Amino acid sequence: MVNNTKLHEEKVFKDPVHRYIHVRDSLIWDLIGTKEFQRLRRIRQLGTTYLTFHGAEHSRFSHSLGVYEIVRRIIGNFEGFPGWNEEERLLSLSAALLHDVGHGPFSHTFEKVFHLDHEDFTRQIILGDTEVNAVLSKVKSDFPQKISDIIAKTYENKLIVSLISSQIDADRMDYLLRDAYFTGVSYGQFDIERILRVMRPWEEQVVIKSSGMHAVEDYIMSRYQMYWQVYFHPVSRSAEVILRKILHRVKFLAESGYSFKKKTDAFNSFFYGNVGLREYLKLDESIMLYYFQAWQEEPDPILSDLCNRFINRKLFKYMEFNPMNVKEWLALHEAFENEGIDPDYYLVLDSSSDLPYDFYRPGEEEERIPIYLLKPNGERRELSRESEVVEAISGKKRTDHKLYFPMDLIEDLSSTSTAKQLIVDLLKRGGI
Amino acid sequence: MVNNTKLHEEKVFKDPVHRYIHVRDSLIWDLIGTKEFQRLRRIRQLGTTYLTFHGAEHSRFSHSLGVYEIVRRIIGNFEGFPGWNEEERLLSLSAALLHDVGHGPFSHTFEKVFHLDHEDFTRQIILGDTEVNAVLSKVKSDFPQKISDIIAKTYENKLIVSLISSQIDADRMDYLLRDAYFTGVSYGQFDIERILRVMRPWEEQVVIKSSGMHAVEDYIMSRYQMYWQVYFHPVSRSAEVILRKILHRVKFLAESGYSFKKKTDAFNSFFYGNVGLREYLKLDESIMLYYFQAWQEEPDPILSDLCNRFINRKLFKYMEFNPMNVKEWLALHEAFENEGIDPDYYLVLDSSSDLPYDFYRPGEEEERIPIYLLKPNGERRELSRESEVVEAISGKKRTDHKLYFPMDLIEDLSSTSTAKQLIVDLLKRGGI
Amino acid sequence: MVNNTKLHEEKVFKDPVHRYIHVRDSLIWDLIGTKEFQRLRRIRQLGTTYLTFHGAEHSRFSHSLGVYEIVRRIIGNFEGFPGWNEEERLLSLSAALLHDVGHGPFSHTFEKVFHLDHEDFTRQIILGDTEVNAVLSKVKSDFPQKISDIIAKTYENKLIVSLISSQIDADRMDYLLRDAYFTGVSYGQFDIERILRVMRPWEEQVVIKSSGMHAVEDYIMSRYQMYWQVYFHPVSRSAEVILRKILHRVKFLAESGYSFKKKTDAFNSFFYGNVGLREYLKLDESIMLYYFQAWQEEPDPILSDLCNRFINRKLFKYMEFNPMNVKEWLALHEAFENEGIDPDYYLVLDSSSDLPYDFYRPGEEEERIPIYLLKPNGERRELSRESEVVEAISGKKRTDHKLYFPMDLIEDLSSTSTAKQLIVDLLKRGGI
Amino acid sequence: MVNNTKLHEEKVFKDPVHRYIHVRDSLIWDLIGTKEFQRLRRIRQLGTTYLTFHGAEHSRFSHSLGVYEIVRRIIGNFEGFPGWNEEERLLSLSAALLHDVGHGPFSHTFEKVFHLDHEDFTRQIILGDTEVNAVLSKVKSDFPQKISDIIAKTYENKLIVSLISSQIDADRMDYLLRDAYFTGVSYGQFDIERILRVMRPWEEQVVIKSSGMHAVEDYIMSRYQMYWQVYFHPVSRSAEVILRKILHRVKFLAESGYSFKKKTDAFNSFFYGNVGLREYLKLDESIMLYYFQAWQEEPDPILSDLCNRFINRKLFKYMEFNPMNVKEWLALHEAFENEGIDPDYYLVLDSSSDLPYDFYRPGEEEERIPIYLLKPNGERRELSRESEVVEAISGKKRTDHKLYFPMDLIEDLSSTSTAKQLIVDLLKRGGI
Repeated sequence: MVNNTKLHEEKVFKDPVHRYIHVRDSLIWDLIGTKEFQRLRRIRQLGTTYLTFHGAEHSRFSHSLGVYEIVRRIIGNFEGFPGWNEEERLLSLSAALLHDVGHGPFSHTFEKVFHLDHEDFTRQIILGDTEVNAVLSKVKSDFPQKISDIIAKTYENKLIVSLISSQIDADRMDYLLRDAYFTGVSYGQFDIERILRVMRPWEEQVVIKSSGMHAVEDYIMSRYQMYWQVYFHPVSRSAEVILRKILHRVKFLAESGYSFKKKTDAFNSFFYGNVGLREYLKLDESIMLYYFQAWQEEPDPILSDLCNRFINRKLFKYMEFNPMNVKEWLALHEAFENEGIDPDYYLVLDSSSDLPYDFYRPGEEEERIPIYLLKPNGERRELSRESEVVEAISGKKRTDHKLYFPMDLIEDLSSTSTAKQLIVDLLKRGGI
Repeated sequence: MVNNTKLHEEKVFKDPVHRYIHVRDSLIWDLIGTKEFQRLRRIRQLGTTYLTFHGAEHSRFSHSLGVYEIVRRIIGNFEGFPGWNEEERLLSLSAALLHDVGHGPFSHTFEKVFHLDHEDFTRQIILGDTEVNAVLSKVKSDFPQKISDIIAKTYENKLIVSLISSQIDADRMDYLLRDAYFTGVSYGQFDIERILRVMRPWEEQVVIKSSGMHAVEDYIMSRYQMYWQVYFHPVSRSAEVILRKILHRVKFLAESGYSFKKKTDAFNSFFYGNVGLREYLKLDESIMLYYFQAWQEEPDPILSDLCNRFINRKLFKYMEFNPMNVKEWLALHEAFENEGIDPDYYLVLDSSSDLPYDFYRPGEEEERIPIYLLKPNGERRELSRESEVVEAISGKKRTDHKLYFPMDLIEDLSSTSTAKQLIVDLLKRGGI
Repeated sequence: MVNNTKLHEEKVFKDPVHRYIHVRDSLIWDLIGTKEFQRLRRIRQLGTTYLTFHGAEHSRFSHSLGVYEIVRRIIGNFEGFPGWNEEERLLSLSAALLHDVGHGPFSHTFEKVFHLDHEDFTRQIILGDTEVNAVLSKVKSDFPQKISDIIAKTYENKLIVSLISSQIDADRMDYLLRDAYFTGVSYGQFDIERILRVMRPWEEQVVIKSSGMHAVEDYIMSRYQMYWQVYFHPVSRSAEVILRKILHRVKFLAESGYSFKKKTDAFNSFFYGNVGLREYLKLDESIMLYYFQAWQEEPDPILSDLCNRFINRKLFKYMEFNPMNVKEWLALHEAFENEGIDPDYYLVLDSSSDLPYDFYRPGEEEERIPIYLLKPNGERRELSRESEVVEAISGKKRTDHKLYFPMDLIEDLSSTSTAKQLIVDLLKRGGI
Repeated sequence: MVNNTKLHEEKVFKDPVHRYIHVRDSLIWDLIGTKEFQRLRRIRQLGTTYLTFHGAEHSRFSHSLGVYEIVRRIIGNFEGFPGWNEEERLLSLSAALLHDVGHGPFSHTFEKVFHLDHEDFTRQIILGDTEVNAVLSKVKSDFPQKISDIIAKTYENKLIVSLISSQIDADRMDYLLRDAYFTGVSYGQFDIERILRVMRPWEEQVVIKSSGMHAVEDYIMSRYQMYWQVYFHPVSRSAEVILRKILHRVKFLAESGYSFKKKTDAFNSFFYGNVGLREYLKLDESIMLYYFQAWQEEPDPILSDLCNRFINRKLFKYMEFNPMNVKEWLALHEAFENEGIDPDYYLVLDSSSDLPYDFYRPGEEEERIPIYLLKPNGERRELSRESEVVEAISGKKRTDHKLYFPMDLIEDLSSTSTAKQLIVDLLKRGGI
């Protein structure tokens, strides 16, 4: 028997995207109150994007509430469905709320540099010695493990897994709407109310009544647009490049025995690869910004310069650059070195790519569960077979390569400098 | 002759409130790029409000751009107005952009505790040795001083002053719309496009064509609603109370010679009242949050507890409490002391009050410039004489008093505790 | 036992105001399908307002669906409330849907000229030999009578009455939001979702939890603004004046034995005061416009001119005119007569007045049920005692008087004409 | 020299889609006031769509204002462009306003049945003896002819033609946004402000700066979605089928010498193919609805039944039906005839098809001007070569076939009826 207590009176959060977020279960209320969940307030949803779209200052806290609310609305229709019970409901809501709880500051960059995976930390927060675990354990002793399994996609009831991990899940629906709202772009809009109305549980998955196909097309297109207009915006990527190089530099300096004016206590366990949950949870974006600001005054000129660039938004300029142009790349590399501009930090090729939708390709690295339409006659059809718009972009990975460099330093070079001549020439051609 | 350079191509910022913010002058572009202006990205527009309305994570950076954009739209109608020239235009735009540049982290609380005034720092940033000053000085040598005068309201052309400091200025219009957008409440909405259409320069002030009276009424009501629904929300004030008490405690400890585990370098000049501009500019909300997080581990139980409350949002509970109830206040104070709960930090009376609109009352502390309506016959009439809605709330200061205390500690007391009995009894009566 | 059948699958209408309107009961679906209800598609919600706000072309059909939807959402919270059962639910929904079913074309004007009352026709449609009555009777034999009583406010369960007839009912909430949406003005917006959340059934009335007071204030102010900005807009009233005069003229001509080129079949029963339900139901705004267009070619110059003005939007001009200025009125009247411009049709004083909110004043003509706030301690307080904004406008009737006249005809007069001189002089003074 | 007078003060119309529509030229103000333009108030923008989406009651009047406003905003950027002068500006604005002025009631159906073309009437209104022509002629004697040429796409300056007739013109942009707004669907939204910012005059066409490609993609997708979600909605088409059959029937009856109880004066010239402009202008949707209502009482059972269906929205049911299924079609036809249900009126195959975007295919019936992107290096590239989303739908005509029939009559047949059996069987299979 699951231990569930209802709140005396429903609580609501005012939310600009979903209007209100409704909480009726003590479990959910208590989870929101834990310090591990509150910590998400100090981690931005979109990393460095606020340096391009100044409205994008929203946190993972609000996104997590949003995902919870969408799941709450979806499963409102599941009552009475065979095998669906109170425990499944609480599992779905909790997993939705906690699916991102392990994210750290500037997650993607940080994880890449330090070879970490936020999903590990999500698992540790749910299963370890935390306030979150204490709240979950009160429901039932195996409740935390089940939540962890759902987020890891290994839980046996794939229907619940699909609510937060599929090509049309609550996670994606919330972030598209939310990121569109806070950046102010119109592309992320789609008719979520209609999509929620046509979602049906069907064996191990949520399927979409075929009458809702156009709403799903619109959702797929929104996602496609948001990737290219917002998530891969070259200016945000410029800030990300600098962030990455700061972390690389600081790690390199630490490993080289450089003596920091400002001690790197908060980062030491990351440098040496023995990160505990406690250290991880202490890190958030305010801590990172504190250090970046302090490191502006380090004697190391590269660390100091990069931190100054990040804090004061003196970003790198960029141009198209196809990595196949090896000769040009080597020439630039050498020219930068000759000018004393370390190309390891100041000449950066960055690539982004996205697969807007894909059908199932067995045996591939990440087997994507396709979206199925449910026809009036009960037949199930994979989306791209019904929609020619989706078919057109289905399985097509698009990649964008950009070269980043400090234009201000280049401009200061003498006009006979090879580095300057190469860059100016490439810019005139619009990159290569 | 004013030195103005136009950008080769107009730059735009995507803004959720005004759709786009348009920049055509190099001066404005360069000001936005200064590090003093970029620093506003690290200071939230609404202080602790994000702990109540999770969407309210927007910064003073975006508000400052918004005020600039509104002024830009207003003065688009001023061309050809006698005495209006290119210099007035640049002065208006720059002053709009910079009017809040001196704000520090959690401004209101911080200033109160350390007896500072952000307007002093605004002046220092504009006139001192800063990137902002360097950019402004390039226009004309006395340009920085004029900007400073406009913000200080001492500038001779009161028309320009009124654009950013009056009862219907660009500052208020932007923050109402912006705060409504990011919190998600609908109250702050009003028809700014209509108001901008009916604004007319008239001697030393912007006046409103009387056909736009209802739009102005709606704006005044929006302001009234936002104050009581958002700005004075008792939960945000609870966080503010805790913040205030943290700063009080840390100042007290420093003055008492307490030895901090975590050195208070960033704050020392504030404790000792000799704050320089450099120190001030280094402080932002990420620095504050860094310290609050570190201070959770201080041996001093009060500092550690208060920081834990702020970081993990374990706020104080509140009730109505009229400060005239001196006897009850003293009884509570004593009962808290008897339980070892220091009332100086854990029993806090907080009052908020607002004057939604006022006409001119000569000789008063702050002489407010009233809003004038311009009638078709050329006559000017003060708003509250024409609008009975505005008249109804005109000059009426409303005050709200609340008592804050840590309910969690009270609940842990034995049922015979006087403190507990007093609190429980007052709560039953809904406060006094 | 009430006969209720659920639809096999929920039906929805896409609605711009409430997003979707949900229908689950066969009864409601069948009522919407009746010809008496479909007829509301041919009657505009805002009469002549579309001649001022071109978006305001929406019909009473969409408003009626909206009122139904709001009531549906309100009573979703009433289940389990003592005395509330399936029959009350169906009664509330049906009464909401049908409350305006008796409206005729350009209702207010039409009723005034022909001394009719749309509420009589609502009753006849519900109780008479109609498709609506047939559908209602299938539920239970006394069901139509109960619906009629609810709309007439004589039904014993005043709680149901108050849902569609009170100072904060579903009717008003829908029309404010809808009229704001279709005109495009922002004034009518308020947070209906919040108001619905704080509505509670309380004995014979719906009351509002006091935590929702500001949302109600905002609603009252929206109503106030909509009245003066939209409903009483002087240009719409100009069209209404002409409409009224057309009907007066055609009635006068009919009574005088004038021989119409275009027979007035559709109107005859109205002229002679023996209107049957069948004739009434045949009239709608397309019929009216058909006749107005045809009457442009009548030999009677006044009828023909007025119809031309209405069809082609050649409206009367207006100015402020206080009816106390009897002398000026008589002078104008005489001057118009002297010029052969019949003042009975071409010099029209029109007054509008509104009472935005009122508390209960026993013994008055229309005893208004006030809005009550429900305090946490269970006490009920009348709104204007708690809200100073509402108090300010409470019980204050505001009246606006305007004088309408055909400026085009006046302009054609010789400059020595007294009529022209009087009008020009008054216009210079901005009216009197 | 062009005769242009500016209004003493700018006039505005409140518009829900563009917020305000601004008029500064007397010419435009006077055109709006003509009776031919005012007549557009009595013709719905979306024909029978209001019977599916109840909000879609907006008129061609508001759409025409919207197209004008968009063109006004686009050409705000054209000043100073070589060859662009005051006359081109007035031509563009007038053509935008008047491009639809020749539309009649339920245009598409009406034109098909009576072999008319609204563009003929547009030309006649502009060149003939009308108020519109009188206003236009005051500018310059050849001004009306130029306007007519622009709308007919034969005007020499193709840049002006492209503003209102291309694959991304002001007409399409307004109707997508407007129809989305009034129906309440979200699909029609796209970022028009961004598109207007990236439009550039380029020789004979407006081109799009390539940085705006994604906004254009979004616009193309909106159009695609609106066609299938709104414009081709099968329920609206059901009403259109009935409307078409009414007109066919009435024409047939007139030609057969049937004696109408209600004389068909307004239609006679249409029956006999000698339609003059005066007769045409008298027809509007209120006149049509007047007749449909009257014809419900005609003795002819088909006319009376069809009118009853249209007025009271008793529409035909539909199913998928591929016209290749000739055998089934003939069987149904015969079965209907056997039951005395005239298949010419009660068994209707209706097909809709759309081409969302196409590049230039020389020699084809309608040579479509493609959308060009302007690259930073000055190169012009056709949209579908740059955008894979657009490429995917480019030139692909999609067709939808539906069979319409009166389900109510079929249900009344005995269960042994072949017609009933055929229909029921097809419905079970979801159509063929």
